[in-house]
Amino acid sequence: MANFKERFAEFIQFTEANLRKYNVCSENSMAQKNLVDAMNYSLEAGGKRIRPVLVYAFCEALGGDHRNAAAPAAAIEMIHTFSLIHDDLPAMDDDDYRRGKLSCHKKFGEAMGILAGDALSVLPFEIIADDTALSAVQKVKIISCLAKAVGKDGMIGGQVIDMENEERTDVDEANLRNMYKHKTGELIAVSCMMGCICAGRDDAETLENAADYGYKLGLAFQIVDDILDVTSTTEELGKPVGSDAEENKTTFVTLYGVEKAQEKANAITDEALLCLEKFGGDQFLKELTEMLLKRKN
Amino acid sequence: MANFKERFAEFIQFTEANLRKYNVCSENSMAQKNLVDAMNYSLEAGGKRIRPVLVYAFCEALGGDHRNAAAPAAAIEMIHTFSLIHDDLPAMDDDDYRRGKLSCHKKFGEAMGILAGDALSVLPFEIIADDTALSAVQKVKIISCLAKAVGKDGMIGGQVIDMENEERTDVDEANLRNMYKHKTGELIAVSCMMGCICAGRDDAETLENAADYGYKLGLAFQIVDDILDVTSTTEELGKPVGSDAEENKTTFVTLYGVEKAQEKANAITDEALLCLEKFGGDQFLKELTEMLLKRKN
Repeated sequence: MANFKERFAEFIQFTEANLRKYNVCSENSMAQKNLVDAMNYSLEAGGKRIRPVLVYAFCEALGGDHRNAAAPAAAIEMIHTFSLIHDDLPAMDDDDYRRGKLSCHKKFGEAMGILAGDALSVLPFEIIADDTALSAVQKVKIISCLAKAVGKDGMIGGQVIDMENEERTDVDEANLRNMYKHKTGELIAVSCMMGCICAGRDDAETLENAADYGYKLGLAFQIVDDILDVTSTTEELGKPVGSDAEENKTTFVTLYGVEKAQEKANAITDEALLCLEKFGGDQFLKELTEMLLKRKN
Repeated sequence: MANFKERFAEFIQFTEANLRKYNVCSENSMAQKNLVDAMNYSLEAGGKRIRPVLVYAFCEALGGDHRNAAAPAAAIEMIHTFSLIHDDLPAMDDDDYRRGKLSCHKKFGEAMGILAGDALSVLPFEIIADDTALSAVQKVKIISCLAKAVGKDGMIGGQVIDMENEERTDVDEANLRNMYKHKTGELIAVSCMMGCICAGRDDAETLENAADYGYKLGLAFQIVDDILDVTSTTEELGKPVGSDAEENKTTFVTLYGVEKAQEKANAITDEALLCLEKFGGDQFLKELTEMLLKRKN
């Protein structure tokens, strides 16, 4: 087996080729071409592709072939991108930049930003339903858990918690953990779950173990985000640093300071690594987990 | 069989009971309760429920039981509601009222309007995937055609055409028909198609015939909308009349005047009625088609 870096690069390349393949302009009108352009602009804005890589890695850790997970992997990246586009809107976080590029609504106008996000919220279900590598039963299970992870009890619910927390001064660790679990954890957990289903393993215990790892990874990921917001540079991060403080957001850093927040991120990463024992201590997943803890953006 | 009005009322009641059943607050947080409230506010704002009724009617015209179509029927109403919430946003049509009530973002704030719409764009796929009356193969077919009808090549594509037309002065009938086909026709056509699939009839010819009827009904529906915008009262319509003229929109009325637009609506309704011959000249669908042509709001 190729070493971690090569395998990781291969997974990213596979994801990006598929994103282009799945989001084509199938109509002749200029209007729809502009819509697809706006969708692709954000899809190709240089995301880390962590979620698709997790789909493949769980599929392979359970003996599956990652090529059978192409549709769910592209789907989760589309959902992530849809959430970023809508998050950046003036009525939401009002961010003009994302990953060092103009945000979608700044580049294409606010109405197009809303509609490009909307289109990226439904295309995932189309490409999973039309996939030829998975059985109908697999597709239905994947769609069920994906929609739950995205919707009112998942990521979108987390965005509402986040929004309402901005009005509060009494946000504690339990609230913050719950918000991060929904806003970030759900998509990461479902990435791991979908990988299992693609490998033909959809028993409740396997899915629960995969989700358990995903929630822990998601929480560590988010605490690292909180830390980078105060320790990184705008250049490294691709977005303004210090934005949490500016918006008076409660984060693990405002609650505990950088050092203790880092200790917590380390401890939760260790817990995530322990979860991987249930997946044969998969080496690729171990290295991925450690890489995310040590990232600089 | 009950007469048309009783049957129609029964279908509406069944739809509204299901919408409440499917959109419950399953989390304890106040934030998520607020999100579900915003979703329900718009779901319960008094829509005509035409799309769910079409799902049931096509299911029954083909010998199915409408109770097996509960999930797709609720799903299409959620999608329709999501599109209305986002359409009303300041960056889109900027409408403060919808059906005589404050629009979702005016009632709950703009960020919540965006998120309530987002949540209603994914919940449909969850409830179809989790349905117990349909087979996995039926669900996958329904999700595939539903997602296509909603997405970049469907309704959302139509909204982009509509938006770009507002910048143009050369919109002709062909362009207008194409815009209406996407913006309105796709959801109506897929309602008819989903009814067929729920009845166990998913051969290409049946689905094509159902869609053909749906596109025609959708076009007639939209021309009637254009007419009501100039002939109705604000009270009857539940929204300001004359808004098309105010926004300099090209409509069938601006192209042809009220009388000729009505003739066109009548002729297209006749074509739609003719399509119904392929569905045994179903009496309920005939009366529904005629009711929509003669509606006052």
